[in-house]
Amino acid sequence: MMSANKPVSEYAMSHIQALQAYTPGFQPKDPDWIKLNTNENPYSPSPKVEAALKEAIGPSLRLYPDPASQALREAVARLNGLDASRAFIGNGSDDVLNLLTRAFSNSNQRAGYTFPSYSLYPVLCGIQDSDIVEISFDRSMRLPLEKLLDCNARILFFTSPNAPTGVAFPNSDLRQLIAGFEGLVVIDEAYADFALETAADLLSDFDNLVITRSFSKSYSLAGMRIGYALAHPDVIEVLDKMRDSYNVSRLAQAAGLAAVDDQAYMKATVGKINHTRDCYLQEFRDRGWFVYDSQANLLFVEPKDSSGNSSAKVACSLFEFLKSRKILVRYFGGHALTDTFLRISVGTDDQMLALSESIELWLRNE
Amino acid sequence: MMSANKPVSEYAMSHIQALQAYTPGFQPKDPDWIKLNTNENPYSPSPKVEAALKEAIGPSLRLYPDPASQALREAVARLNGLDASRAFIGNGSDDVLNLLTRAFSNSNQRAGYTFPSYSLYPVLCGIQDSDIVEISFDRSMRLPLEKLLDCNARILFFTSPNAPTGVAFPNSDLRQLIAGFEGLVVIDEAYADFALETAADLLSDFDNLVITRSFSKSYSLAGMRIGYALAHPDVIEVLDKMRDSYNVSRLAQAAGLAAVDDQAYMKATVGKINHTRDCYLQEFRDRGWFVYDSQANLLFVEPKDSSGNSSAKVACSLFEFLKSRKILVRYFGGHALTDTFLRISVGTDDQMLALSESIELWLRNE
Repeated sequence: MMSANKPVSEYAMSHIQALQAYTPGFQPKDPDWIKLNTNENPYSPSPKVEAALKEAIGPSLRLYPDPASQALREAVARLNGLDASRAFIGNGSDDVLNLLTRAFSNSNQRAGYTFPSYSLYPVLCGIQDSDIVEISFDRSMRLPLEKLLDCNARILFFTSPNAPTGVAFPNSDLRQLIAGFEGLVVIDEAYADFALETAADLLSDFDNLVITRSFSKSYSLAGMRIGYALAHPDVIEVLDKMRDSYNVSRLAQAAGLAAVDDQAYMKATVGKINHTRDCYLQEFRDRGWFVYDSQANLLFVEPKDSSGNSSAKVACSLFEFLKSRKILVRYFGGHALTDTFLRISVGTDDQMLALSESIELWLRNE
Repeated sequence: MMSANKPVSEYAMSHIQALQAYTPGFQPKDPDWIKLNTNENPYSPSPKVEAALKEAIGPSLRLYPDPASQALREAVARLNGLDASRAFIGNGSDDVLNLLTRAFSNSNQRAGYTFPSYSLYPVLCGIQDSDIVEISFDRSMRLPLEKLLDCNARILFFTSPNAPTGVAFPNSDLRQLIAGFEGLVVIDEAYADFALETAADLLSDFDNLVITRSFSKSYSLAGMRIGYALAHPDVIEVLDKMRDSYNVSRLAQAAGLAAVDDQAYMKATVGKINHTRDCYLQEFRDRGWFVYDSQANLLFVEPKDSSGNSSAKVACSLFEFLKSRKILVRYFGGHALTDTFLRISVGTDDQMLALSESIELWLRNE
């Protein structure tokens, strides 16, 4: 029996004991909430996805899925004009990012990531006990090219379009970065379908570029957990050696295939969201609030109170007020680049109108 | 741009570059095969699972799943008479085993596993670059207690009932092992629903016991990817810090819940399989073939040719003959403990009859 003095968790590696877990956005069970806090798509998945899922439910669920998710791999490769040897399917893009961290960094090999970006990167590096370098944006939120080129990491993670800002980095900048970078450059394109450009066009020029994508945003399938990577076949091979043999379920593979097949639906949904985003971006600016140009399904907004001041306190006040009215947005405190802002996922027009009305009320009451 | 001389995979850790991937059993796309090679359940999942899945398909797939899989966590805990703080849900039990390896071993902290057992353990340790010790069974396939107690590992993995043998280890032996072991003992109970005993009864006595379970076998849900761990709350907390935030999809959570709720169906299915297993175990023995006592949905059989000889060549000959007749079983070459055997997953009575007839034919032709 265990010695009474030693808690069993102390058998864990010391860096694991010290680990801070990733904090996902609040997922209320009550459907009355207006959820503008986790960048989900406000519209349903394609009816063809629902049909494909219904079709896939049956006796064959007793059988393991295709370990390689080959059909889906071929579909996402084709969609991006690439050979299937350049594609990899994960249990969400988090699975892919985790495998990349694990393959290409550790306490002796540095991983870099930008701040602010997807706050999972530091957590994944923490699990891996990676030597890390965090490269901070400045208030412009443009890519800090020199700092990135000098960061001496073997793998570099950032998001484009970036979250929480929505700012996209032009391929001209990316090309310069990747060409000069002595290691892998992972561009997390979770939001690329909402953007004007994708770095996928650079894959044929650079062996050291990895692109990750998600079905959670543009395809409205956050609940299914499907993501993918596009990269040089050697990198794909590394990921294939490391992934769980059956990392993607039969239903996730079926849903992914049907979603890719219905580009028209995805593009229509994305078109609606981008339209709503641009309207409300303008509305915030008309209020005199600072908002970053966004090419994602989110707006990073710096609220001003009725006296025209913005501050962490003002942002928190609006956050709490919205929450009291069952509207969830995301607040990232603790850093000057983010703590005066709220990240607002773009919802339906009705949801955004409700948000707008609540902001009016806050301005009158506060 | 990358130097032309350095393949991009060389940015990976050296142990990752050297890694041998896990080889899953062959998954033919053609449904004509009789698949007795991956220990899948030959019967469909419960109709209640199918109903729950159809119910869960809809607009809510646009939303992230419950990160903690809380309802399913509570259900598996209740099923095992435990508090929910002692349960953890994974994307298959492979996900759980991977997290355990990662939390509790590395190149300075030893992981142990038995041979032959689930051949994923060495792969997971390879990904983690763990210091390893492999503890071999002898031909009796009984638990090598002394060797295990002396192996000096901080985490020990084995399967009970074991695969590929089907041999279950009695709780009296397990109690002795866990009581004397200075580290975590992980008992992979993927096949426990087919067995007479479970080590879950020992959880209240030992903080250092971890049990993993799978929905792939007894619940006929290999295609869905659902597994779980039962352990001390401190161990569960470690796993929760490390898992992907949304590691289990909405549909997997719904399917798991419905499956747990329909114990009668699972037990009826398991009863049929156990009956078939015991009939064919007897038939093999009546042929004069050696077979281990099995408490899993598989038989580890040492075939004899028409002259009464068993050897690796004989086992391979039968394997190939069955394959030529579209019957898949599993062969594990390269080691004296396994290379004269075939592992045969228990199918339906019809499938087992077809197997039996093919064996007759092989005996006559060979």
